[in-house]
Amino acid sequence: MNAQEALRKISDEKPLVHHLTNYVTVNLVANVTLSTGALPVMAHAAEEVEEMASLASALVLNIGTLDPGQIGSMLLAGRRANERGIPVILDPVGAGATSLRTRTAERLLSELEIGAVCGNAGEVATLAGLDAEVRGVESLAGDAQSAALQAARSLGVTVAATGPVDYVSDGARTLAVSNGHALMGRVVGSGCASTSTIGCFAAVGGADAETVAHALAYYGRAGEVAAGSSGVGGGGTFEPRFLDALAALAGEPGELRGNVRVEEMSVG
Amino acid sequence: MNAQEALRKISDEKPLVHHLTNYVTVNLVANVTLSTGALPVMAHAAEEVEEMASLASALVLNIGTLDPGQIGSMLLAGRRANERGIPVILDPVGAGATSLRTRTAERLLSELEIGAVCGNAGEVATLAGLDAEVRGVESLAGDAQSAALQAARSLGVTVAATGPVDYVSDGARTLAVSNGHALMGRVVGSGCASTSTIGCFAAVGGADAETVAHALAYYGRAGEVAAGSSGVGGGGTFEPRFLDALAALAGEPGELRGNVRVEEMSVG
Amino acid sequence: MNAQEALRKISDEKPLVHHLTNYVTVNLVANVTLSTGALPVMAHAAEEVEEMASLASALVLNIGTLDPGQIGSMLLAGRRANERGIPVILDPVGAGATSLRTRTAERLLSELEIGAVCGNAGEVATLAGLDAEVRGVESLAGDAQSAALQAARSLGVTVAATGPVDYVSDGARTLAVSNGHALMGRVVGSGCASTSTIGCFAAVGGADAETVAHALAYYGRAGEVAAGSSGVGGGGTFEPRFLDALAALAGEPGELRGNVRVEEMSVG
Repeated sequence: MNAQEALRKISDEKPLVHHLTNYVTVNLVANVTLSTGALPVMAHAAEEVEEMASLASALVLNIGTLDPGQIGSMLLAGRRANERGIPVILDPVGAGATSLRTRTAERLLSELEIGAVCGNAGEVATLAGLDAEVRGVESLAGDAQSAALQAARSLGVTVAATGPVDYVSDGARTLAVSNGHALMGRVVGSGCASTSTIGCFAAVGGADAETVAHALAYYGRAGEVAAGSSGVGGGGTFEPRFLDALAALAGEPGELRGNVRVEEMSVG
Repeated sequence: MNAQEALRKISDEKPLVHHLTNYVTVNLVANVTLSTGALPVMAHAAEEVEEMASLASALVLNIGTLDPGQIGSMLLAGRRANERGIPVILDPVGAGATSLRTRTAERLLSELEIGAVCGNAGEVATLAGLDAEVRGVESLAGDAQSAALQAARSLGVTVAATGPVDYVSDGARTLAVSNGHALMGRVVGSGCASTSTIGCFAAVGGADAETVAHALAYYGRAGEVAAGSSGVGGGGTFEPRFLDALAALAGEPGELRGNVRVEEMSVG
Repeated sequence: MNAQEALRKISDEKPLVHHLTNYVTVNLVANVTLSTGALPVMAHAAEEVEEMASLASALVLNIGTLDPGQIGSMLLAGRRANERGIPVILDPVGAGATSLRTRTAERLLSELEIGAVCGNAGEVATLAGLDAEVRGVESLAGDAQSAALQAARSLGVTVAATGPVDYVSDGARTLAVSNGHALMGRVVGSGCASTSTIGCFAAVGGADAETVAHALAYYGRAGEVAAGSSGVGGGGTFEPRFLDALAALAGEPGELRGNVRVEEMSVG
């Protein structure tokens, strides 16, 4: 589903997007979800995650500040999401940095049906079994395109590897998304929030490569619009305008026409 | 107590407002509390909540990201607050969405003396035993005025049901607060933060209907001021100006004169 | 190490600064760390804190929303940091307000080799065994200079007591840092974030009094720059510009020349 159609459906349906996520960027991902036109909800207790997932149209799992209790709740919520057939989107924050994160990402991919994985090149490369350098939660190197393709093939899910250019692959085709702006990298949580945007799009359009790529294109386009607005002097002043731009584009999806840069990569 | 008097007392006394709250909006509620002139403090460990509540002038309980440990701590802090006679304000975030939240809100209301409840129409209707639609943490329908009145009567506490117009009832009288701006609904946590503002006012003026209504009027008036300031293009750029407006009005409460729209509803 | 040299090294090395911190201000401290040029990472599970600390160049322990599990993880991470010889920076948020916080700060100081402690005058005075008034997490009184000196002497570590003027002492010498702006006190977490800035500087320069003082001078200077920028009307609009100013000064450390106000106090 393309970005304009997805945003119109989100606006019509106001899907609930249930997050089990980290406490560092939770406020930003909630505001990005709301700006996109969906309804964010966070709930992590084992006592309620299944019930909350039953109300939701998509589930976003983000392992950025993982602990054992949260892993159990992710499995409960994910199984319920799978039973209901709603998409589950995984952000493997820090996979490759610690074994708890790598193992947990692998376990979630093994025990749940994940619709799409969205991470930086190093995290995605780790899940593809490639060499990667992940320091903390930052990827320091890696070929995002081949990481996305190989991870998609080995995991059998849609994979997005984000960076200056985002690559989205389902194993058969790979799409390159060149929307975006360098200031997005100066805001903590811009990666987490791109995954939540994929969650919003998947709630109405599924987690296929095209829908995931268009979510990232919309997200990147909002970054371009925000970066060009007056009064922006760095990541700090950029962030509030980025939320405004997401909401403005969600309210007028026609503005995206001609500004979405999603390109099919040839299978060289 | 009216808004001007409450803000002057808050400025004089700098009351400590102890929060047990959710991790999604905790930063905003802390900044709103500080902007109002009070001192926010968050402490949730069973090992210290009673001691912290002993230092506080009001206690705010917000169930937005509930878990069993937090429920136990809310009961400990709430009992200490009751012993000390300081007001306890409850935000039943998501009551009606999951049974954990509904049951917990009911339990807190049953085991503690709550001064005021502040939620959206759906949450308040749930606590009043009325039909309501709550999806995640958003209320999708409901008559806020009758929900507030009926909840106040059945629970025996002051109840605020927030929305485009806020209704505050103590069961005998109902006040309508028409201050506010639509952009407040485009910021995640604006509901949580309105409850914290009630906590600040209650710390100096108690949790009667008039004081609660004036807290919401001040809060809504700040939203109007912020929405009218230059450079606001959406929820993102609105939020920092909203904090500024809260602080500016707290510093010059006389500015509220003629701008507080609190109206007594006739008992039809 | 002076501020210009430290910022250049941070820019070159992009040190990973591992935080175990509170959930109120975690987003701000992460953004401040990123703006300073370092890479923030938060990880708190006992299952991964040692591994994450093994990747880091500094460890920041902030007790602002303490619980028993977090204390255990702080000890695990701190011991690993000590084995590796990376600096451990402690922010004793709320020490003096509750016994859990006071005891935990003392325990961390006793069981770990702490490089520097950074707190407000009341928290530092508490750790020095002096009388102090700490209400919640705010210091309401106290002589910051003598608190810093006496805490440094009794604890045997570098101590920073922040306030309108910051005092940094190693027990032998005391430095006064007069950079800063009153608006910093209108942002929740500005104290926590100053400690993270010390963490960034310590990652490349160690935790001696000069490096700590220069971290605070840089931080305060960014506050001055932000306060002077157009469109600032209070703490809300100040915060994003403060992040921009931190990043701008980190990118052009030469701008600090002549603007760092660090003064050696005579030992009266």
